[in-house]
Amino acid sequence: MQIKKETLQELNQQHLADHKKQFDFIALQIPNVENILQKLIAFQIAIPSWALGTGGTRFGRFPGGGEPSSLEEKIEDVGLLHSLNQSSGAISLHIPWDIPEDANAIKALAARYNLKFDAVNSNTFQDQPGQAFSYKYGSLQHVDANVRRQAIAHNIEVIKHGEALGSKALTVWLSDGSCFPGQLNFREAFKRTLESLQEIYKALPADWKIFIEYKAFEPNFYSMTVGDWGQSYLFSSKLGSKAYSLVDLGHHLPNANIEQIVSLLMMEDKLAGFHFNDSKYGDDDLTVGSIKPYQLFLIFKELVEGMDAKGLDHATDLAWMIDASHNVKDPLEDLLQSTEAIMIAYARALLVDATTLQQAQQENDVVKAQEILQSAFLTDVRPIIAEARMLSGGALRPLESFRVLNARGELIKVRGNKTLATGL
Amino acid sequence: MQIKKETLQELNQQHLADHKKQFDFIALQIPNVENILQKLIAFQIAIPSWALGTGGTRFGRFPGGGEPSSLEEKIEDVGLLHSLNQSSGAISLHIPWDIPEDANAIKALAARYNLKFDAVNSNTFQDQPGQAFSYKYGSLQHVDANVRRQAIAHNIEVIKHGEALGSKALTVWLSDGSCFPGQLNFREAFKRTLESLQEIYKALPADWKIFIEYKAFEPNFYSMTVGDWGQSYLFSSKLGSKAYSLVDLGHHLPNANIEQIVSLLMMEDKLAGFHFNDSKYGDDDLTVGSIKPYQLFLIFKELVEGMDAKGLDHATDLAWMIDASHNVKDPLEDLLQSTEAIMIAYARALLVDATTLQQAQQENDVVKAQEILQSAFLTDVRPIIAEARMLSGGALRPLESFRVLNARGELIKVRGNKTLATGL
Amino acid sequence: MQIKKETLQELNQQHLADHKKQFDFIALQIPNVENILQKLIAFQIAIPSWALGTGGTRFGRFPGGGEPSSLEEKIEDVGLLHSLNQSSGAISLHIPWDIPEDANAIKALAARYNLKFDAVNSNTFQDQPGQAFSYKYGSLQHVDANVRRQAIAHNIEVIKHGEALGSKALTVWLSDGSCFPGQLNFREAFKRTLESLQEIYKALPADWKIFIEYKAFEPNFYSMTVGDWGQSYLFSSKLGSKAYSLVDLGHHLPNANIEQIVSLLMMEDKLAGFHFNDSKYGDDDLTVGSIKPYQLFLIFKELVEGMDAKGLDHATDLAWMIDASHNVKDPLEDLLQSTEAIMIAYARALLVDATTLQQAQQENDVVKAQEILQSAFLTDVRPIIAEARMLSGGALRPLESFRVLNARGELIKVRGNKTLATGL
Amino acid sequence: MQIKKETLQELNQQHLADHKKQFDFIALQIPNVENILQKLIAFQIAIPSWALGTGGTRFGRFPGGGEPSSLEEKIEDVGLLHSLNQSSGAISLHIPWDIPEDANAIKALAARYNLKFDAVNSNTFQDQPGQAFSYKYGSLQHVDANVRRQAIAHNIEVIKHGEALGSKALTVWLSDGSCFPGQLNFREAFKRTLESLQEIYKALPADWKIFIEYKAFEPNFYSMTVGDWGQSYLFSSKLGSKAYSLVDLGHHLPNANIEQIVSLLMMEDKLAGFHFNDSKYGDDDLTVGSIKPYQLFLIFKELVEGMDAKGLDHATDLAWMIDASHNVKDPLEDLLQSTEAIMIAYARALLVDATTLQQAQQENDVVKAQEILQSAFLTDVRPIIAEARMLSGGALRPLESFRVLNARGELIKVRGNKTLATGL
Repeated sequence: MQIKKETLQELNQQHLADHKKQFDFIALQIPNVENILQKLIAFQIAIPSWALGTGGTRFGRFPGGGEPSSLEEKIEDVGLLHSLNQSSGAISLHIPWDIPEDANAIKALAARYNLKFDAVNSNTFQDQPGQAFSYKYGSLQHVDANVRRQAIAHNIEVIKHGEALGSKALTVWLSDGSCFPGQLNFREAFKRTLESLQEIYKALPADWKIFIEYKAFEPNFYSMTVGDWGQSYLFSSKLGSKAYSLVDLGHHLPNANIEQIVSLLMMEDKLAGFHFNDSKYGDDDLTVGSIKPYQLFLIFKELVEGMDAKGLDHATDLAWMIDASHNVKDPLEDLLQSTEAIMIAYARALLVDATTLQQAQQENDVVKAQEILQSAFLTDVRPIIAEARMLSGGALRPLESFRVLNARGELIKVRGNKTLATGL
Repeated sequence: MQIKKETLQELNQQHLADHKKQFDFIALQIPNVENILQKLIAFQIAIPSWALGTGGTRFGRFPGGGEPSSLEEKIEDVGLLHSLNQSSGAISLHIPWDIPEDANAIKALAARYNLKFDAVNSNTFQDQPGQAFSYKYGSLQHVDANVRRQAIAHNIEVIKHGEALGSKALTVWLSDGSCFPGQLNFREAFKRTLESLQEIYKALPADWKIFIEYKAFEPNFYSMTVGDWGQSYLFSSKLGSKAYSLVDLGHHLPNANIEQIVSLLMMEDKLAGFHFNDSKYGDDDLTVGSIKPYQLFLIFKELVEGMDAKGLDHATDLAWMIDASHNVKDPLEDLLQSTEAIMIAYARALLVDATTLQQAQQENDVVKAQEILQSAFLTDVRPIIAEARMLSGGALRPLESFRVLNARGELIKVRGNKTLATGL
Repeated sequence: MQIKKETLQELNQQHLADHKKQFDFIALQIPNVENILQKLIAFQIAIPSWALGTGGTRFGRFPGGGEPSSLEEKIEDVGLLHSLNQSSGAISLHIPWDIPEDANAIKALAARYNLKFDAVNSNTFQDQPGQAFSYKYGSLQHVDANVRRQAIAHNIEVIKHGEALGSKALTVWLSDGSCFPGQLNFREAFKRTLESLQEIYKALPADWKIFIEYKAFEPNFYSMTVGDWGQSYLFSSKLGSKAYSLVDLGHHLPNANIEQIVSLLMMEDKLAGFHFNDSKYGDDDLTVGSIKPYQLFLIFKELVEGMDAKGLDHATDLAWMIDASHNVKDPLEDLLQSTEAIMIAYARALLVDATTLQQAQQENDVVKAQEILQSAFLTDVRPIIAEARMLSGGALRPLESFRVLNARGELIKVRGNKTLATGL
Repeated sequence: MQIKKETLQELNQQHLADHKKQFDFIALQIPNVENILQKLIAFQIAIPSWALGTGGTRFGRFPGGGEPSSLEEKIEDVGLLHSLNQSSGAISLHIPWDIPEDANAIKALAARYNLKFDAVNSNTFQDQPGQAFSYKYGSLQHVDANVRRQAIAHNIEVIKHGEALGSKALTVWLSDGSCFPGQLNFREAFKRTLESLQEIYKALPADWKIFIEYKAFEPNFYSMTVGDWGQSYLFSSKLGSKAYSLVDLGHHLPNANIEQIVSLLMMEDKLAGFHFNDSKYGDDDLTVGSIKPYQLFLIFKELVEGMDAKGLDHATDLAWMIDASHNVKDPLEDLLQSTEAIMIAYARALLVDATTLQQAQQENDVVKAQEILQSAFLTDVRPIIAEARMLSGGALRPLESFRVLNARGELIKVRGNKTLATGL
């Protein structure tokens, strides 16, 4: 399903007067609203190919209809999102779920939707049919060199697929670890994993990066071999300047201060970017901003401050991706909500008065520092984001438009009610 | 220090034009803004007498200056807050820290500041000089009947002090519990505690309530005898219709869903009210809304929905109190921030479109339900709260006024730099 | 596969001298070793039919070989375990995974292995092929009465299956809850769930019990409608005297004091029994005793003390079941380890000197209370458990025997390498 | 109070026959019991000078009697412990609580009790009377260079005190951090802290080490500037080869896998050693081994394996110290229990069959790996520890001897009932 520009414009037209009033009002109160609009327009968040279908847990999965059953349909879905919000201009593929048989055709298709190919993702946490060795006891950490070699080769193959499509980074998330005390020698597992990563690192094209994602627990329930930012940092710093640590918001122990981790990884020039989602208990993979929107804002506050201090380009120097699971919502609606939540957090972070904040910090004026942050957080920035979207040719109200246009209904008509997207 | 009405009006005058513009803009977009204003004006949050000085941890305390060193000065401080925000119209006393020598004089003083006396609080978690028996191993749970009798008598004395001042409730927070496995027979400790509470319950005046506060841990680090809402509920339901369970936001295990607890306690007609604060790790006692403002909003959403369903009066049928500790902020500024955060959460909860939400729930439209909540949460309600404050005779900008008037400086001038308030 | 008594006796013979020496040594130091042996022999822990195959997570599953693919084979597997340890004398069925086509034949088969039928379990957390209504948004809590009726009918059907086999209890674990704020009205969800449970309660045979299991999170990640012991207690107390609260060790928030919960549920005559497993992070479903063996001991200490105080029969008045998932271990070996861990915890709890402990508690002698518990915990009770096993006709060393007899190899020979057991 | 050798021997005599029987029995089953005994005898755990009095929380403190009120009395108390268990042969001083006026006299006194001086500890988390600048907003991280200079100078002074006594390490625990979002620029705080530490590092004598302790939270409740092992590692690796990361068991987020952290820090040659205690919720500072004895064993298993792999001397190459708080137990009895728990964990770790474990790991035999660990953990090693103690001239039953000799009573007689030890 592809939405025509004119259709969107018609829909926008209905809300334009209202929007104009609200945007003008907020624009008056914000210095440099133009600058903020430009940053919002440039900011693109990749959609993972595996999050376009209904997600599930070990207890079950309740699929909806019209899910994409091919890479082409997944690109179509991301194109649909992007046409609505103009902020979803990239797709992140997962191999082997999304092996592009004809890379050029796939590239052309994506270009038609104005989409880029973000980081490619390898999968050594599941066994594939016909696979010679099992990952039951790990992959890059495995005691058996055969298994490690197979996992390394898979990662190198993923890089090749990515190169063909124009990706510039490989994301390695390892489920490696152990379920029971004694199962693993932590040191030896670390060393084997490092050696395996070094083999993969060697195969990286010159202009590529490798992202080392960490996770506190699940699917291993005693130890994870890349379990926290400290371990991820050890790996990325030992690997070299093309290696970075990737932060997934749901991959931490309870109560972790993620914004501080983000700040320190930036300090060390080791922050790869983000897998956005939200959670209350573990890696719940809920809609971004649905549980802890203030934490998300605080993270963006660190990002903006850190990227500015480092002279980084907000839009391109870090990797931005949603990594959520859609168990009870329509996946596309969920992704529209997630993207909106990210843009809101980013816009609010851009509103933080950095000079005054720094001054308050210098004076240990804790009360004032809080006022500055909360003042940015309390500002209703929705009209600014809508304006940025409209300026880019998107919808003033993406979710409403999705429903008004009966997008899911149209997809079900074409694809049927029983399709199942690959993914988790 | 007492701020004159005219002084406030002058200060307000400077921001009035700006405020008017903002209030008018938001008022246009909200149905029933008048109704919301009335509710905000009626809503009063008690200030605990022990939170007017600098707080601390077991590692130390860094007092500021001008802290109140008598009950009279504490009342003066709350009066100061109330004159600024018109939402702090009650004080909650803690015995033995705030024994009123002359109850009538104290009542008259409070009346001059337009303050009421909220729930009175007993203290059986510390030993007082000259006390016959020690609370080292608990109070109402103690194996020794002498200790229990002493603790019961203390609670009854607290009720008497409260009666003299016009309080209508006794809050019992017990630190009773155990630090080590084996120290306590849980069942027996529960039963002894229940019997002690029954003695206190008998001494309650006819129009009084008793609030049973629960806490997951600290100062006991293995078990707490009133450790969670389930235990508090067992106590309050066994005691009788005048007994209720009190929720302190910081008294839960990591990741607890407090809003659900609130909803269920209301269902059972057993919710006493709140001790507001915020926290990241434990009973951190931070400024309300400084860490998890969305959780606070969700709690208020349950409160508004539940109180409306039960036909309760928002302002008077539940108990509202701040219970925070001010380790690095000026206590009065901190309390102004906390009160503002509560009013914001409450105002946003009042904005939730209950009818549409109920309909979305009936249709399992999870996406829409989230949109409804977030739309209320994303609305910038600060002008509404400022308007309510101004209508009540308070300051448009309480914190700014506090600073412009050099309130702390004035207090230091009168009280000196080395005073120490009683409390934690 | 069925192990002959003589085979076991031969295997035991090899270790008998060693065992005798060790048992005699420990027996000398323990008062009433005979009494303990009798209790250990009587203590039987049910095996859930869904835990006989390899478990998994949403990320994948790595099956082993020789898994049972029918109810008959599942019974055979439990029979195998029971012949080895003589402590696994019951099986707990899960409907619809284990619908007995011919109840009498199944009963006869179980009798041949000396197995009883423990509580039966319903499943309204997954959709089954051909099911009229979906449980995507809950079952007993659902806003649609049709869904609730379907779920009630399923539970009643489960009771019927259980009756045919001689079960005496229905375990209801609900995944009902919500993934996002706003999705659910907590109060209404509670009330609908209660009404549904009341319908099921009505269908309970006179001598049956119903167990209400609670769980803090997963698969719902914002709220669970039976989320903690307090909620489970509300349900079971409102239902009536045949309703009890079931404790699964992995279903709590971080740091919860489970032993205190157990003690209080016993105090209220509302403890159903246990689903045993172990965990570090969430509902990890690891081998019992593999992560927190001291916690397990403390729970058993409460159980023994509470059952004795209430005059309950240890073996029969509460329900004992393992509920673990075997992702990286052979399921049968895992279950042997779990059973051993439970017997160890139970035996140690039986060693606690209750009189001296009570005295230490009366004197607030916290040091001594800890010494008493730790002395029991530090005692090496393995020879006592081995003796009990041998007296019952089991193996001195069950796990070793399982391996020596190449039990898994034999099962693979018969069942093949690619079978897949139903379950999680 | 000093216990005479003969007195102990008399006490031991009463239990000798029993002990002999038990030791002989266990010795028969353990290979290399002699070797284990030697290691146990050599293993000494330092006692912190601040843990000899009753501890407390912000809610209060319930002191016992006979607490040491001078450095001399603290040394006497550690001497008393050491005479009983022969494993507490070192004391760790805290400046300014324990400034030795006459270093030589203090050294001589310690020598008389056969005690060494372990790491010295600085204190920049409290303000001392007469101090020029306040640590309210941090010390080594402070925005004001004057505060940092004062804190650096204090640390250098502590080193000097340590040198005079023969200490060889400085432990730096910083409470630096922030209580509220916005209060601190994390990066700048890190950099200032690093620069301050570098100044202190320069002042280290050639044969000294500096230990960087980390802590997740408390007394700061939003961020800690040395908050986790990753941050501590960043500091210690940037400082140089004399800097190490110190692990306090209570300083982690919920569910952290401490044993893995220990293993990785050893891998990087950055493990300083330990502050032992136990906890359920946070930095509860409970008796070692009283809550999670299996975790303690798993940590020791990593230590033994890692130290052996690195060729380290168990007794001397890492720093071992108890850091607990004694709120409800007699401090000396508590320390006896803690020391015993550490020795038990260490002895059990020495029993782990490293060769077989490594083989099981190579074969991914998870079941066997668990059996090996649990077999060591289930062994009752108390007779071995008692034997080691007796061989060193200590008590077979230290706690019992402490009570039989009425040690606390004697201390109260001399020191009175109202003394208060400095410390937390």
